[in-house]
Amino acid sequence: MARRRLGTYLHAKRALLERELDRILPPMEGRTEKVQSAMRYGVLNGGKRLRPILTLAVAEIFGVDERQALVSGCAIELVHCASLILDDLPSMDDAQLRRGRKACHREFDESTAILASFGLLNRAFQVLQELKGKGVSQKAIRELTLLLTAAIGTDGLIGGQIIDLESEKSMDYATLEFIHSHKTIALFLASAEFGCVLGRAGGRDRAAILQYAKPLGLAFQIQDDLLDALSTPEKIGKDVNRDVEKTTFVSFCGIEGARQLNRELIQSSIASLAPFGKRGAILEDIGRFSLSRRS
Amino acid sequence: MARRRLGTYLHAKRALLERELDRILPPMEGRTEKVQSAMRYGVLNGGKRLRPILTLAVAEIFGVDERQALVSGCAIELVHCASLILDDLPSMDDAQLRRGRKACHREFDESTAILASFGLLNRAFQVLQELKGKGVSQKAIRELTLLLTAAIGTDGLIGGQIIDLESEKSMDYATLEFIHSHKTIALFLASAEFGCVLGRAGGRDRAAILQYAKPLGLAFQIQDDLLDALSTPEKIGKDVNRDVEKTTFVSFCGIEGARQLNRELIQSSIASLAPFGKRGAILEDIGRFSLSRRS
Repeated sequence: MARRRLGTYLHAKRALLERELDRILPPMEGRTEKVQSAMRYGVLNGGKRLRPILTLAVAEIFGVDERQALVSGCAIELVHCASLILDDLPSMDDAQLRRGRKACHREFDESTAILASFGLLNRAFQVLQELKGKGVSQKAIRELTLLLTAAIGTDGLIGGQIIDLESEKSMDYATLEFIHSHKTIALFLASAEFGCVLGRAGGRDRAAILQYAKPLGLAFQIQDDLLDALSTPEKIGKDVNRDVEKTTFVSFCGIEGARQLNRELIQSSIASLAPFGKRGAILEDIGRFSLSRRS
Repeated sequence: MARRRLGTYLHAKRALLERELDRILPPMEGRTEKVQSAMRYGVLNGGKRLRPILTLAVAEIFGVDERQALVSGCAIELVHCASLILDDLPSMDDAQLRRGRKACHREFDESTAILASFGLLNRAFQVLQELKGKGVSQKAIRELTLLLTAAIGTDGLIGGQIIDLESEKSMDYATLEFIHSHKTIALFLASAEFGCVLGRAGGRDRAAILQYAKPLGLAFQIQDDLLDALSTPEKIGKDVNRDVEKTTFVSFCGIEGARQLNRELIQSSIASLAPFGKRGAILEDIGRFSLSRRS
């Protein structure tokens, strides 16, 4: 029942998000078509859209106009996709596949991929400004902008990636946690907090949402590690076993240990939704089924 | 006389800008020190700071609080430096030297340089939000943000760079002009317009300032081409003769022709300052002496 409810929900929201992303991305025209194509390629590739869905689902709890949540969530997704393009570069993970297709720098070339990533980041800040036309206050737009820059900067994505790159294959648990709390969880938290800002959530509600999103983000990362350890490229659409010599949650806890950790994280995540009663149903479903994610 | 006046002015403003940039850049501390060092390295390297000086000088005409102009100008400079880091990458110009020192990716490594560039772009948007604490209205911050994103995007820096990279060594005049109007002039114009926004300049004043800045930006680029053709790396602190097989304004017009074109551009630039009378003196000096620039 809950699974079907979530399935319908995700299907509907993904369709909305794809349409909105398509609108937001620059058309492929004029002399600069190449970089525009690369921007579109890096985004419109069947991603799960988990982050903007989190924004949408949180915004719903607080009765936010869906168009506002859509635009804000798309800004987050543009940043996420920009970071994936960089992660895959030869000087970083040197990945061949992303979401079942050639990585952006292999479909185009390295310089185009870098410029596309830059362009997506830039477009994200532009898109947040568009919220004014959708009835979001200047104060809220400012808050969203500050949240996004914090999630991107050296205390967020960029900080996580630099430590990931410079870490030895074998690292201690503190480093592993640092990397994920910066590379994954920071933008995850921002996605959820976006919904709170749009919904003018009070301090206690906002804290509850963040307490929900934080373990969820970590569980999501651990699920990724499990998929990497257990899957094939055909199944998950990106290079696998790349982590084979690298420290991950799976190498720390083993397959069963990682699964157990995940169950506990999701339990704690769902417990934080108590204050919202039935309004938290979709967020609860998202948590529960993140465990059964296969791709 | 005018030369001495300008020299004193530039000296004083550069000192202010260096201090402000130093404040704005993240300190080198904690685990992510490497990327923070690279961000600082890419900015605090003796740049001419022409763009933020343009912001300061235009803002002065309209009686803007200097602290507002400083912060705004620094946001522009961060974006400019971010774009230089990318331009120098192996997949782009593969440059060895920048401002007399190793290019960022050679002092650090490629992935760190890319992340530093990303970090600088992100920091620029954060810095614009800081203007609220300095008395700039939300409306003006929004306008600055939109101007900056437009100058960075596919109609600005990114668009110019993609065409520059994909152009044959030999190109037609229209392509050459497209590249410079996007790669150089777009951010130049934004720098000048920043001063207008902060000063709430009227439409006619703003148009005059843009008419001043546009030919100045082009003249600046042509002067760069002349320097490349005539100088040594020791003198100008970056690789030279890289353009030797590439189409530039010098290859189109020859040395004398490029100098003549420059004189005409600066003449037209200065003529646009007529409405400001004596208040335009510094802008006039900047135009006049851009021609004698040697480094």
